[in-house]
Amino acid sequence: MNINKNYLNLEDSYLFSNIAKKVAEFTQKNPDKKLIKLGIGDVTLPLAPAVVDAIKKAADEMGVQNTFKGYGPEQGYAFLREAIQSYYLKKKVSIQADEIFISDGAKSDLGNILDIFSQDNMVLVPDPVYPVYVDTNIMAGRKIIYAEANKENGFLPLPDDKIKCDIIYICSPNNPTGAVYTKDGLKKWVEYAHKNDAVILFDAAYECFIKSDELPSSIYEIDGAKNCAIEFCSFSKTAGFTGTRCGYTVVPKELVKQNCSLNKFWLRRQTTKFNGVPYIVQRAAQAVFSDEGQKQIKENIEYYSQNAKIIADTMDKLGVWYTGGKHSPYIWLKCPNDMKSWEFFDYLLNNIYVVGTPGAGFGNNGEGYFRLTSFGNRENTVEAMQRFLKAFT
Amino acid sequence: MNINKNYLNLEDSYLFSNIAKKVAEFTQKNPDKKLIKLGIGDVTLPLAPAVVDAIKKAADEMGVQNTFKGYGPEQGYAFLREAIQSYYLKKKVSIQADEIFISDGAKSDLGNILDIFSQDNMVLVPDPVYPVYVDTNIMAGRKIIYAEANKENGFLPLPDDKIKCDIIYICSPNNPTGAVYTKDGLKKWVEYAHKNDAVILFDAAYECFIKSDELPSSIYEIDGAKNCAIEFCSFSKTAGFTGTRCGYTVVPKELVKQNCSLNKFWLRRQTTKFNGVPYIVQRAAQAVFSDEGQKQIKENIEYYSQNAKIIADTMDKLGVWYTGGKHSPYIWLKCPNDMKSWEFFDYLLNNIYVVGTPGAGFGNNGEGYFRLTSFGNRENTVEAMQRFLKAFT
Repeated sequence: MNINKNYLNLEDSYLFSNIAKKVAEFTQKNPDKKLIKLGIGDVTLPLAPAVVDAIKKAADEMGVQNTFKGYGPEQGYAFLREAIQSYYLKKKVSIQADEIFISDGAKSDLGNILDIFSQDNMVLVPDPVYPVYVDTNIMAGRKIIYAEANKENGFLPLPDDKIKCDIIYICSPNNPTGAVYTKDGLKKWVEYAHKNDAVILFDAAYECFIKSDELPSSIYEIDGAKNCAIEFCSFSKTAGFTGTRCGYTVVPKELVKQNCSLNKFWLRRQTTKFNGVPYIVQRAAQAVFSDEGQKQIKENIEYYSQNAKIIADTMDKLGVWYTGGKHSPYIWLKCPNDMKSWEFFDYLLNNIYVVGTPGAGFGNNGEGYFRLTSFGNRENTVEAMQRFLKAFT
Repeated sequence: MNINKNYLNLEDSYLFSNIAKKVAEFTQKNPDKKLIKLGIGDVTLPLAPAVVDAIKKAADEMGVQNTFKGYGPEQGYAFLREAIQSYYLKKKVSIQADEIFISDGAKSDLGNILDIFSQDNMVLVPDPVYPVYVDTNIMAGRKIIYAEANKENGFLPLPDDKIKCDIIYICSPNNPTGAVYTKDGLKKWVEYAHKNDAVILFDAAYECFIKSDELPSSIYEIDGAKNCAIEFCSFSKTAGFTGTRCGYTVVPKELVKQNCSLNKFWLRRQTTKFNGVPYIVQRAAQAVFSDEGQKQIKENIEYYSQNAKIIADTMDKLGVWYTGGKHSPYIWLKCPNDMKSWEFFDYLLNNIYVVGTPGAGFGNNGEGYFRLTSFGNRENTVEAMQRFLKAFT
């Protein structure tokens, strides 16, 4: 019996546990101080009423013999796939329903998709990065190279023709940097993928925060992307589904490698290793696309976007360099006075009682940067920014 | 870019599509005949009222700011893990809460668990077999050998010391044969696993159908199993969750291979590639363990068990050899008159308008056998058996 030794190459991430530890210590010593947490990557607004109603209606159906649902299609029910198809059409992207696979979230699919690729592919991930891209490939024993994201390129690295890779991760709007690729930027990556016979794994989990038609919210807005890209999307940030679990992955039929349809490979993977998303959750996700649901979730997205704007405006006033804040719930800022990430964390915690996330936790290029998020409540966001203004003016 | 070429070694299963095709043809030619389907592997009774109520209550919580739940623990909420811990205690099996991992179903975990093992392990699966055991290993490029299950061993193969393997699949009560291992039988497998440094993957998805304390419903009822076995269980057949999706996997801390804790490996796998089961579904699963929930689901299990008894009693009357029928929702019968599986399928369809599943679809040793299930309704089951009696007496 041999275990998968690649697991021994994984590094433990202490980022969030270190933050928790420092916060706990501070709170114990300073029980009277009002701490404001702007480090949270989770949503805080409740599910929309249309979604709650859909769950309850579906639960009632499940309790009655003639409307009960047993095993559903592993790829998801047609009603949800067709709703997503219509959502793409509004972006002027035409996708067939059987190119859409319903999943329990982008995180699962971003990891599981690697099943259909050989171990010997070279992987390109940006630095800084969402750690899951790295760890899932280490588990499979793949080699990883990094695309340098930094202040010079606005944390939006472009392809380097001297570097050869097979699997490319792009997240736009980006976690953790909030930076968003233009159509021209994505076009360069699509061209690179074609030239190098590579596949782009496009993480669009934050697409709903994009407010401009000029910026691509799907990689399929770029010509030729269907031949080289798989897109991952989620209801987590769009509709507050982080604890309700639903996402979708698009694998176009045009995507053929070594004469094999990746759509067929992924279908085979999902029908063999997955049994679909709960019926009640798929009905919940469908409700997101109803007129009522769209109105309600857009109010929530607008609430978070306004928080982001409040943070971004404060950074503008202070002359702090940052990415994100617009078209993204994240603000990725350069620590003032050339502080290092953890130094700035300690400074904020001890002086203005605000908690954020040290950029160094997301990769080498994150050192000296810091992530604030807009998922908190309005009053706290406003108060935290008043404290920022006072401390750094 | 290289695809995972192991996928090209997968054989397409035409079992259920062939059945569907033949049934469709028959129905078209004989629109007046009342077809009875006893081939179904899915439950048909609705969710228990206690479960429906729990979903609706959880949905309401999700719709209110201060009870809303975002990301939960990937391994599942403590309330559900502790309920499962108590369920095991009733079987006199002591498991710690952090040895229990909540999943979206046994099928997912049975596939995903392979992530933590090296590709070069030798896999032992019984023949006939639930196809997922085979396909998930073919996808990973592992070698598979078969343990012969047949009439002579009552479709309960025992270990052969001449054969060396690393990963052993055991499903008891078995799908498709309904056969159930005794404690003595499982003890032999546990001894073999220890001797060969192997891990047993124990699929207990049908444990709720066991009616006798003499028969093991968990492999951990066998001394030493915690050092060599991972157990997979599900609410699918227990509580009609096939479309609601919840299961659990037990990885004991005593299970150490090559100085590595498989519990820690699986925790790392799940925290990296999974984001937990929906809160509303975990509340639904918790309700299964309430007094009310237990009473309600036991009525459903009893309903299916009675159907199974009606089928088994009919086979007894006809002198047809079978396994299952007791402690299982499946009846695996030897086709009368030495008919082959598909021959018998056609005979039943055309003469008594009953649909079952040809055993040959589950492996070579299934040839000449046939699976009937007890998941249909009472009236149809009774009528189908009357037709059997008339046709074969």
